[in-house]
Amino acid sequence: MIYLDNSATTQTDPEVAKVMADVMVDVFGNPSSLHGLGVKAERLVTGARKVIAQALNVSPEEIFFTSGGTEANNLAIRGVTEEYAGRGKHLITTEIEHPSVYEVFQYLERKGWNVTYLPVDSQGRVNPDDVERAITEETVLVSIMHVNNEIGTIQPIEEIGRRLERYPKVLFHVDAVQSFGKIPLLPRQAKIDFLSASGHKLHGPKGVGCLYIRKNLHLPPLLIGGGQEQGIRSGTENVPGIVGMAKAVVLARQKGDAFIRDSANWKEAFLRQIQERLSSVIINGDVSREGGAPYIINLSFPFLKSEVIVHALEKEGVYVSSKSACSSKKELPSRVLKAIGRSDEEALGSIRISLGRMNTEEDLMRCADALGKVIPMLQQVMKVHNR
Amino acid sequence: MIYLDNSATTQTDPEVAKVMADVMVDVFGNPSSLHGLGVKAERLVTGARKVIAQALNVSPEEIFFTSGGTEANNLAIRGVTEEYAGRGKHLITTEIEHPSVYEVFQYLERKGWNVTYLPVDSQGRVNPDDVERAITEETVLVSIMHVNNEIGTIQPIEEIGRRLERYPKVLFHVDAVQSFGKIPLLPRQAKIDFLSASGHKLHGPKGVGCLYIRKNLHLPPLLIGGGQEQGIRSGTENVPGIVGMAKAVVLARQKGDAFIRDSANWKEAFLRQIQERLSSVIINGDVSREGGAPYIINLSFPFLKSEVIVHALEKEGVYVSSKSACSSKKELPSRVLKAIGRSDEEALGSIRISLGRMNTEEDLMRCADALGKVIPMLQQVMKVHNR
Ligand SMILES: Cc1ncc(COP(=O)(O)O)c(C=O)c1O
Ligand SMILES: Cc1ncc(COP(=O)(O)O)c(C=O)c1O
Repeated sequence: MIYLDNSATTQTDPEVAKVMADVMVDVFGNPSSLHGLGVKAERLVTGARKVIAQALNVSPEEIFFTSGGTEANNLAIRGVTEEYAGRGKHLITTEIEHPSVYEVFQYLERKGWNVTYLPVDSQGRVNPDDVERAITEETVLVSIMHVNNEIGTIQPIEEIGRRLERYPKVLFHVDAVQSFGKIPLLPRQAKIDFLSASGHKLHGPKGVGCLYIRKNLHLPPLLIGGGQEQGIRSGTENVPGIVGMAKAVVLARQKGDAFIRDSANWKEAFLRQIQERLSSVIINGDVSREGGAPYIINLSFPFLKSEVIVHALEKEGVYVSSKSACSSKKELPSRVLKAIGRSDEEALGSIRISLGRMNTEEDLMRCADALGKVIPMLQQVMKVHNR
Repeated sequence: MIYLDNSATTQTDPEVAKVMADVMVDVFGNPSSLHGLGVKAERLVTGARKVIAQALNVSPEEIFFTSGGTEANNLAIRGVTEEYAGRGKHLITTEIEHPSVYEVFQYLERKGWNVTYLPVDSQGRVNPDDVERAITEETVLVSIMHVNNEIGTIQPIEEIGRRLERYPKVLFHVDAVQSFGKIPLLPRQAKIDFLSASGHKLHGPKGVGCLYIRKNLHLPPLLIGGGQEQGIRSGTENVPGIVGMAKAVVLARQKGDAFIRDSANWKEAFLRQIQERLSSVIINGDVSREGGAPYIINLSFPFLKSEVIVHALEKEGVYVSSKSACSSKKELPSRVLKAIGRSDEEALGSIRISLGRMNTEEDLMRCADALGKVIPMLQQVMKVHNR
């Protein structure tokens, strides 16, 4: 099996799984317990918080563990609209956010908030001028993702952060789930108030994530109870998950640079091959090294169906994705691909190939071979079918 | 180490940890992915859902996985008040709920809801007559826990459920976190609409739980996003956690009856010994076999301090708890012990001894010995101190 669906989720690094199993059996205390086993568990959580804080160059007290990226996004956005409603009723985001951001804004619209969904250019990039122009007296929050999960485009977060500095009442949230531990983004430098991350996108565990909340900002909790995580996120701490996420970050820091460098080279070689062999291919997103994540490749084969391509590749032992995992079971054309100007036919025939640290150059080359084999076959079938 | 703090959290069964590590490394797909590895992950989740559903004798579609008991409680209570607000503005709960229920009601009061906090008797039991008497035209929800986490008292849930049948517009939520997998409670039989459970209280993983939602009832999501869990709980499924929780339930069903029978015997022997040796002891909660969980023992030693007893026992190698883990770091007397009529002095000198499946009779006897040694010593110190 060649697994190229790492933006949906990654294999948990065996070292991470090992650490977690050990914690589960040996340091299983509740961090709230007063005795030694509780203290040991709390120390593990404290240590993990430091690791994450260091990776973001922030204070440990600014890191709040959650059950994943979805909860981090919900906590930030719903929290801001509850806490800072007095400032106004206007929110700004983009047309290409992940559902855990986009659907929250749709919900807030139904609750009476005004939301501006910024368009993106043909490569999937938001224009910082557009962000600034959208701001009104009423604007409370701007939420823009770092790396897009379907097409890999990197947003100009630092530039947007700089612009937002002129509007001290406007808070800035960044969904960094697809970039955390891979493409550096420092909240202080980019003037970010809230940043979301998730464990399972970087060879860490599922069911754990975190939200950075800038000091002196307060969010009301989504989960109310025992008062863990400074009262902002109650619930017995998922100690093994938290430790596992920190371990994944440590491993990413050790191996991450090589992964980014290598995958950028492999991606370029792959795209050259694909364009030579398959003239009908459309490449979605920004393929430049500065503008696109090297580990996400999105291709359209108009008039073919994503699901059919995915299954044909699977027969060749290659696992890729039709759009993002979250929406892959619905038959609608991708909202992201529509936003960059693709037609329905182009969007419905798209696949996402996404790399992780476990992949090799050969994986991607074998994917190119498999595509070179199955796409002409499928196109032939379509031709016969449509005759 | 003799670990007697199983109501705070349990050791993950090594079999559970093993299964989870295997899933993390081998079946790491995203259940939303179309390819074989996604399908395999989805099948694991489906299988786990069936196991939980069977344990409760409900349909798998009525089980919704969450990040734990706190989220399940929040989802149920906050969800009901959002979805069924049209029915009225009155809620009923008890004075002895866990913070993940109690604090939610406190929050809802601040948001304009009227909440009746039912008292309990000296053993910690709610009177079903009181529940019925509290119901008004405006009542939307009754939320009552099954087994109390501090004193182990079992509430007459089936009787309350029967009474509530006469009020079809009143919904019934039960926090079964401390009983699930240990003391049977079947939602259909007890006319329960929502039931919360958590993995880590029964030798399963931290960071996973579930909510039973009776068919045809709808709750709005707390976590909005990709639409997982029938749209009621978005976020990439914590597949290893979910599988681990199901495995823990399977093990609990195999070994649970013996555990309940044995611990009831041990508890009785323990209490006899303690009463013989320590005349000052007060036993909190219902010690009858029908009325109290055999795995929770709560004792008060007036004029001593919980924390001091906990640390003295720790020196003897015995790990117990001062009140519940969640609130054990605050110095206030337990709300639960106050509700059963204890004075501040009695409440501040309480400890909780809680058994899990890994404990033996000898563990409890050694705890009795340790108490027999440290309590008179501490009382002596207090005497000298207060002279
Ligand atoms: C950009 C982005 N944000 C948020 C999420 C949600 O994170 P999680 O799966 O941890 O809930 C994902 C992945 O599903 C994502 O790709
Ligand atoms: C009765 C009760 N309800 C709810 C919870 C919360 O569950 P969790 O720790 O999974 O968030 C606990 C334990 O902390 C509990 O004892």
